[in-house]
Amino acid sequence: MFDFKYYTPTKVIFGKNTQEQVADLVKEFGGTKVLIHYGGGSVVRSGLLQQVKDKLDQAGISYLELGGAVPNPHLSLVYEGIELCKKEKVDFLLAVGGGSAIDSAKAIGYGVANEGDVWELYDGKKKANASLPLGVILTLAATGSEMSDSSVITKEEGLLKRGYNSDLCRPKFAILNPELTMTLPDYQTACGCTDIMMHTMERYFTNGGNMEITDAMAEGLLRTVKKNALILKKDPKNYDARAEVMWAGSLSHNGLTGCGNNGGDWMPHKLEHELGGLFDVAHGAGLAAIWGSWARYVYKNCLPRFKKYALNVMEVEDRGSDEEIALCGIEATEDFFRSIDMPTNLRELGIKPTDEDLQTMARKCAIGVGGKKGSARVLDEAAMLEIYRASM
Amino acid sequence: MFDFKYYTPTKVIFGKNTQEQVADLVKEFGGTKVLIHYGGGSVVRSGLLQQVKDKLDQAGISYLELGGAVPNPHLSLVYEGIELCKKEKVDFLLAVGGGSAIDSAKAIGYGVANEGDVWELYDGKKKANASLPLGVILTLAATGSEMSDSSVITKEEGLLKRGYNSDLCRPKFAILNPELTMTLPDYQTACGCTDIMMHTMERYFTNGGNMEITDAMAEGLLRTVKKNALILKKDPKNYDARAEVMWAGSLSHNGLTGCGNNGGDWMPHKLEHELGGLFDVAHGAGLAAIWGSWARYVYKNCLPRFKKYALNVMEVEDRGSDEEIALCGIEATEDFFRSIDMPTNLRELGIKPTDEDLQTMARKCAIGVGGKKGSARVLDEAAMLEIYRASM
Repeated sequence: MFDFKYYTPTKVIFGKNTQEQVADLVKEFGGTKVLIHYGGGSVVRSGLLQQVKDKLDQAGISYLELGGAVPNPHLSLVYEGIELCKKEKVDFLLAVGGGSAIDSAKAIGYGVANEGDVWELYDGKKKANASLPLGVILTLAATGSEMSDSSVITKEEGLLKRGYNSDLCRPKFAILNPELTMTLPDYQTACGCTDIMMHTMERYFTNGGNMEITDAMAEGLLRTVKKNALILKKDPKNYDARAEVMWAGSLSHNGLTGCGNNGGDWMPHKLEHELGGLFDVAHGAGLAAIWGSWARYVYKNCLPRFKKYALNVMEVEDRGSDEEIALCGIEATEDFFRSIDMPTNLRELGIKPTDEDLQTMARKCAIGVGGKKGSARVLDEAAMLEIYRASM
Repeated sequence: MFDFKYYTPTKVIFGKNTQEQVADLVKEFGGTKVLIHYGGGSVVRSGLLQQVKDKLDQAGISYLELGGAVPNPHLSLVYEGIELCKKEKVDFLLAVGGGSAIDSAKAIGYGVANEGDVWELYDGKKKANASLPLGVILTLAATGSEMSDSSVITKEEGLLKRGYNSDLCRPKFAILNPELTMTLPDYQTACGCTDIMMHTMERYFTNGGNMEITDAMAEGLLRTVKKNALILKKDPKNYDARAEVMWAGSLSHNGLTGCGNNGGDWMPHKLEHELGGLFDVAHGAGLAAIWGSWARYVYKNCLPRFKKYALNVMEVEDRGSDEEIALCGIEATEDFFRSIDMPTNLRELGIKPTDEDLQTMARKCAIGVGGKKGSARVLDEAAMLEIYRASM
C-alpha cells in the first residue's frame, strides 16, 4: 500500500435539469465575466447553449463565447482563448461539452493565469502557479475531466499530444445531467464507456501494493460500466444507464480508484496518445484497439492483478492456472469491446499505419514519457514498438 | 434513482508521518493564528501534540490550545472555545483527535463566524452562513467527521444530543496517518468499525431508488471494513488493516456511498443519539446494540435492499425466500458484531434503562426528528418505543 493524496474539490450537481443552476453556481464561485467554451454545433443545435446564456442573462452575469474545441483539442484555439480572456478581462471559464471543451478550457485557464507560453506546461518545461476558475456542464461521459486534475492538448505542429496534471485546474463545479448525453451517437457512447473503464484499469494494473477498499470500489465501478454499456447499446435513452455511466466517468478519473496504489500504469493511454496525435482517432476506440496487445505483453509481470480482474470484473470461472485465468480475463475484455462495437486492433480501428509510422509513434511515445514508463511492466521504446506491431 | 449533490472539498493527505505536513497545510489554507483543539490526554502522552506545536513553531504560525473535548462533545466547551477564538482573533481551527474533537471544533467554527447562540443551529432554529476554516489530524477512525458536513453536540442541560449539517464545516484538509490509530484500545477500534459500517448502512437501507455504482462501492466498503475489523481484533498493529479502516471511515461519511439514494434512513443513528444523550455510551457500541432490533422492525418494508445486503455484504447463501435471506443477513451482522465484542442489545451494552427511560428516549427522539422519520420504514414515537423495548 502506498501513501496518497486525495483532493476532489469539485462540487457535483447531478440529475435532471441541473443545468438550470448554472448562474447560481458561477456566482457562488465568484464569476462575474464568463467565457463560455464549447465544441461543435451540438450544444448550439440542442438549445443547451441558449439555455445557459439565458440563465446568465437573467442573473446579470456578462459572458462571451468561444466555440470550436475539437477532439484532441488544438493548441491554436487555446491561444485564441487566452488572448480573448486577457482582452475581455474574463474571470471565469465555463466549459459546455465533453472532454475536448473542458481540456481546452483548462489550458486557457492556465494560459491566462501564468506568464509565458502555455505549451511549456504540456511540454514539461515548467509548472503552473495558478489557473482561472472553471465550471463545467457535461454533455459526454468519457474523459472524467469534469473532476480530474488532467488535460490533454495537441500541438498541430508535429502533431504532439501531451497532458499536464495539476490540482489547480480541477473544476469548481460540474453539472452532470444524464439527459444531456441521450442523443450521443452509439459509437461515441461506446468510446466513452471504454475511456471510463480504462481510467480505472490504468490505476488497477499496478505493482508494488494496493488497497482492498480501492480495489473493491474499482471492481464495482468496472462491473457497473460494463453492464450499463451493454444496456445503452440496446436502449440509448435509458436514463438510469446513462446516469450510472456518467457518474462512473467522474469517479473513474477523480483519483478515487487509485488511492493506495502507486499512481497507475498509464501506458495504454500514452500509447494511444501517439495514435491520436498521428491519426486523429477517437480516444476511447484507440484505447480499445491497443489494450489487448498491451495486456498480453505485460500480464505475466502483474499476474495477481490480472487474475483478480478476470475473476471480479470479467467474472470468468476460477479454473485453471493463474496465467490461464488472466488470459481469459483479457479475452473477455476484448469480447466485451467487440460487443459494444469497439475495435480490438488497429485494423478494426480503421487505420493502416506503416511500420515506419509505428516506429515514429514508439519513438515519440518513449520521448514523451522520458525514455520508459509503466507499473504493470516498464516499457521502453522497443517494447512500445512490439505492442504497436502486435496491435496491427 | 434520485438527483444528488456531491461535494467533498477536503484535501486528504494519507500515509505514514503525514502529520509532519501540518504547518504547510495550515498555511496553504490561509491560517495565521490557530486554535489547536483536542480531547483527552492521549494526544499529549503520545507526543503528537508536541510534534504539531513544533511544526507550527518552525513555520512561524502562532497558536493556542484547548483540550478537553469528550465523546458526545459538550456545548459548554464549545462556548469556551468560541470565546477564546474571538478574544484571541483565531482564524484557523486545527482539531487533533477523533470525532469528538472535530465535531467540537466544527461547532466552535460556527459559533465564531455567526451571530447569536450556536446551539440554535443544532436545535434547528437557524442556519449557518459561515464557519472558520478547519483542518484535522485524525487519531481515531470512526465518525468520518474529517470529511463530512456533520457535527453532533450534546447540551448538558436536558442531555440533548443534536446534529447540524452544512457544507460550511467540511474540513479544508485531513491528515490521515493510520499509525496514529495503532494504540487504540480494542473496544474503541471495534466501536469505530461499527460506526463506519453504519454510516454506509444508513445510506444503503432506503426505499425509492438507488444507483448500482453506489451500491457496488458501498458493498465493497462494507466487506472491506468487516474483514479488516476481524484482522485488527487479532492484530491491532496491522498497518494495512488500520489503513483500510481509516480510509473507509472517511469515504463512508463524505457522501460517496449515498449518491443517488434518497438521503439515507438515519433512524438507527437517531435512536442511538438518545441513548448516548441519556447514558453517555460509546456511539459505535450504541449503534450495534440498537441495529438488530431496528432491522427486524423495518426489513419487510425494504426487503430487496436487505436481501441484496445479505448476499453481497454478509455473503449468506442465496437459498430460501427473500425474507429468510434478509433475516440471515441481519443475524450474520449480529454475529459479526459479537465477533468483534460489540453488543447486540442494551443489556450487552451494559445499561439497564427502565421502561420510563425508554419512553423518554422515544419521545425525545420523535421530537428531535419532527414527529417521524425513516426511509427503510418511517418510524413514529410508538415504533421507536417498540424498537427500544425489543433491544432490551
